[in-house]
Amino acid sequence: MQIGVIGSGECYGDICDAAYRIGQLLAENGAVVINGGLGGVMEAVSRGAKSRGGTVIGIIPFKDKKPANRYCDYVIATDMGHARNMIIVHSSDALIAVGGGYGTVSEMAIALKEGKRVVAYRPAVKLDGLILAESPEEAVSLALEGFS
Amino acid sequence: MQIGVIGSGECYGDICDAAYRIGQLLAENGAVVINGGLGGVMEAVSRGAKSRGGTVIGIIPFKDKKPANRYCDYVIATDMGHARNMIIVHSSDALIAVGGGYGTVSEMAIALKEGKRVVAYRPAVKLDGLILAESPEEAVSLALEGFS
Amino acid sequence: MQIGVIGSGECYGDICDAAYRIGQLLAENGAVVINGGLGGVMEAVSRGAKSRGGTVIGIIPFKDKKPANRYCDYVIATDMGHARNMIIVHSSDALIAVGGGYGTVSEMAIALKEGKRVVAYRPAVKLDGLILAESPEEAVSLALEGFS
Amino acid sequence: MQIGVIGSGECYGDICDAAYRIGQLLAENGAVVINGGLGGVMEAVSRGAKSRGGTVIGIIPFKDKKPANRYCDYVIATDMGHARNMIIVHSSDALIAVGGGYGTVSEMAIALKEGKRVVAYRPAVKLDGLILAESPEEAVSLALEGFS
Repeated sequence: MQIGVIGSGECYGDICDAAYRIGQLLAENGAVVINGGLGGVMEAVSRGAKSRGGTVIGIIPFKDKKPANRYCDYVIATDMGHARNMIIVHSSDALIAVGGGYGTVSEMAIALKEGKRVVAYRPAVKLDGLILAESPEEAVSLALEGFS
Repeated sequence: MQIGVIGSGECYGDICDAAYRIGQLLAENGAVVINGGLGGVMEAVSRGAKSRGGTVIGIIPFKDKKPANRYCDYVIATDMGHARNMIIVHSSDALIAVGGGYGTVSEMAIALKEGKRVVAYRPAVKLDGLILAESPEEAVSLALEGFS
Repeated sequence: MQIGVIGSGECYGDICDAAYRIGQLLAENGAVVINGGLGGVMEAVSRGAKSRGGTVIGIIPFKDKKPANRYCDYVIATDMGHARNMIIVHSSDALIAVGGGYGTVSEMAIALKEGKRVVAYRPAVKLDGLILAESPEEAVSLALEGFS
Repeated sequence: MQIGVIGSGECYGDICDAAYRIGQLLAENGAVVINGGLGGVMEAVSRGAKSRGGTVIGIIPFKDKKPANRYCDYVIATDMGHARNMIIVHSSDALIAVGGGYGTVSEMAIALKEGKRVVAYRPAVKLDGLILAESPEEAVSLALEGFS
């Protein structure tokens, strides 16, 4: 099971903590974490997953693997800018959005268009079909529902 | 000047009429219409632009040019699925959204992230930074502002 | 008819002259020139096409339209690096390679894989299926064969 | 270390055996195998790597992960057709080509353009800069050279 966790390249306080906790919970549930491989929410969820022995794949927009955060086990270098967002969506069985800005909105929208399960914790915008979660625990539980 | 016009692959009534009218107005103002090259809003805006002698470039998600609507002067076949949305954004100096679903949301979000002018007529969702227009005339006028 | 003309970003002497001449001949035959929109062969063929009133579409690897050469009528900004080569291939009804390096090889290979007509003038490498031309005139004639 | 192994979607006899052996050797050397995730050489190298407890990432051209061969530990679904070849190249620290057709040529060409180490066993075409190997053992040894 590959679960995409999406959010901004910068994060603070609760959003960062939530991303970290989501990473831990996904790892504990045996889910592989797919993310954008950079900073902020991407780094926090990666760090959380690694703290519980999980596996993290970072799909980055650049052609060089180096800018990926150091918690990624594997790095996919796309050299495709925002189009890499679509690859994150297609590679994920379900997605969890943690806060997030415009990039996250683009990912949620395409994931919903593709009929994927998209759970959102504190989303910037509410799109039809989003499943809202009140806590990291609920987010992971809702994302994994139906896969067990 | 290349103006992207984005919206759903199916359209009815006012949305379709507005897209057609926006195509006419863009052509009259000498703007090249960039769009997704398929049906609905994409076809309506293309048809409108051609009715006024304008130029239309359809950027389609498939590898074959044939599915493009017949009002496209030129067809860019990407074979990139939703990632073609990003190419529409990057190729446009400004964008006008006419109604629209998830795909349109993904385009508006990335265009705003890139700091582009995004005018929306009856958008499905209101993103920060969107410039709302009440009519096709206002949409075109707002989109072209600053380019003359 | 959209004909892709591919080759290096730098060109000298005969290769540059051939690209320019091919642009002229394509324009005279009413074919739209698709190319990578940058310098070298791409600029030479664009310049040739414009000298005969032709139409040129540059599909560039960057997210900004500005680096395109000034002979492009329309610029498609992909922000996709080498993946833009695939878009050039899919958007072309047939291709003409003029000299060229590694990038051109990637385009010829994918075009041949897609079953497209690929005419080559002084190719760096001879791939199975390439149609070799001895002159710009022969290259254009062979590329347009079967489309009239 | 992520090593790309590239080749055709169908393979027979020696080519298939060589891909399998290369997978085994990469796994024994602790290298992660990156490949196109489908059949032929892609499946053979994946199977070889798994037979030695290695890790395999399949980067496939489709939007659905299902067509990936069952030896992939992780699947990246790109929905980008041949453009996924570029992602394989960028994600690989070095590449080994095993036989191969047009698609493999496109990958070798772009990898060489990017200055990557490209080792080829029985390549369909000899591009400048390719490092030729006479055996699977030599291919892996040459690919890993400089990384230890």
